[in-house]
Amino acid sequence: MKKFISDKVINRLTLYHSILTDYIEKNIDYISSPQIADLLHIDNTQVRKDIALLQYKGKCKVGYKVKELKTFIEDTLGFKSVKTAFIVGAGNLGMALAKYDNFEAYGFNISALFDNDSDKIGAKINNKQIFNILQLPVLVKKFNAKIAILTVPRIYAQEVSDFLVDSGIKYIWNFTPCVLNVPDYVQVWNENLIGNFLQFTVNHSVNETN
Amino acid sequence: MKKFISDKVINRLTLYHSILTDYIEKNIDYISSPQIADLLHIDNTQVRKDIALLQYKGKCKVGYKVKELKTFIEDTLGFKSVKTAFIVGAGNLGMALAKYDNFEAYGFNISALFDNDSDKIGAKINNKQIFNILQLPVLVKKFNAKIAILTVPRIYAQEVSDFLVDSGIKYIWNFTPCVLNVPDYVQVWNENLIGNFLQFTVNHSVNETN
Repeated sequence: MKKFISDKVINRLTLYHSILTDYIEKNIDYISSPQIADLLHIDNTQVRKDIALLQYKGKCKVGYKVKELKTFIEDTLGFKSVKTAFIVGAGNLGMALAKYDNFEAYGFNISALFDNDSDKIGAKINNKQIFNILQLPVLVKKFNAKIAILTVPRIYAQEVSDFLVDSGIKYIWNFTPCVLNVPDYVQVWNENLIGNFLQFTVNHSVNETN
Repeated sequence: MKKFISDKVINRLTLYHSILTDYIEKNIDYISSPQIADLLHIDNTQVRKDIALLQYKGKCKVGYKVKELKTFIEDTLGFKSVKTAFIVGAGNLGMALAKYDNFEAYGFNISALFDNDSDKIGAKINNKQIFNILQLPVLVKKFNAKIAILTVPRIYAQEVSDFLVDSGIKYIWNFTPCVLNVPDYVQVWNENLIGNFLQFTVNHSVNETN
């Protein structure tokens, strides 16, 4: 995947991917762009433009072949290249993400969780073991893990982030509401859940009176 | 909030807001745009442009007044208008969101959780009660709740979504990896966590070998 794809296109492609997964479960073989557009309340032209980016030529009178289109999206977004990731912080959010099987379909191999709570260490969530956070540097090397999913409480976020950087982690998917201070060679993706939702509420004027 | 603000600007403003919250905790009174830009690894010009949108005039030689700038962001993004929301699905993700106190700072009043598991019904998480899902229609009316945060397992997503719509919910913040089929008068925000992160991995070529 060398070509730059805009954030909005990637976001839509993953939504198309969810729809295709549903269709496969329902044993439906074909899907049309207006069907996708209707489900997402977006414009059909947009859907066709996005799919054109995949260089998928399989369109026929009855639409796209569901399985083929799904494979094209997976190839374009690199789902096939496995990326090992650790969850750091085995609280409710960390547990929720560990249980989220869809990650694997997207090429993320969540191989372990880490915490400092001795009551949690040693337990398994969805076949993934919770390790002592102090074992992280060794396991980063062993699994060649580059990605940490940070789900610790806000007050520990910076301290744990420093530890991750020192341990060799190169990408931090940050679920804490903290802006992390990291060296330039480390990339942080701030999940910023509230920011995402505010985009929605601000521009749809969600309030108590409407 | 009538003026349209782009998604990217809203996202950055909420990140600035997190930084300002940190500064207040650390008793720091002033912040400059280069300080914000450095923390987020973005351009200083961008920060100044975003802040100009707030029509905040408080900049002086030592920078912006932290508390004032925070208030301007809150006013612009409507944090002061309280929006009542229900969490539907008291699994790990629902619990994690119920414990997330930051929602209140952003004007979201998460007043209750709902589930169909009798072992969970009646319990309290962070002072919020878990109710039987069947009580939802009555409580939507009682609390004038318009927003549901959907955190049920994927296979129940559409069924529960239909129930929410019938109960009078107008906005669904969808954390399931399902694309929901809803009437036009209901708005869905697909959280699409994986899509968010893929934007990051695709364009930074995250893989096992780099």
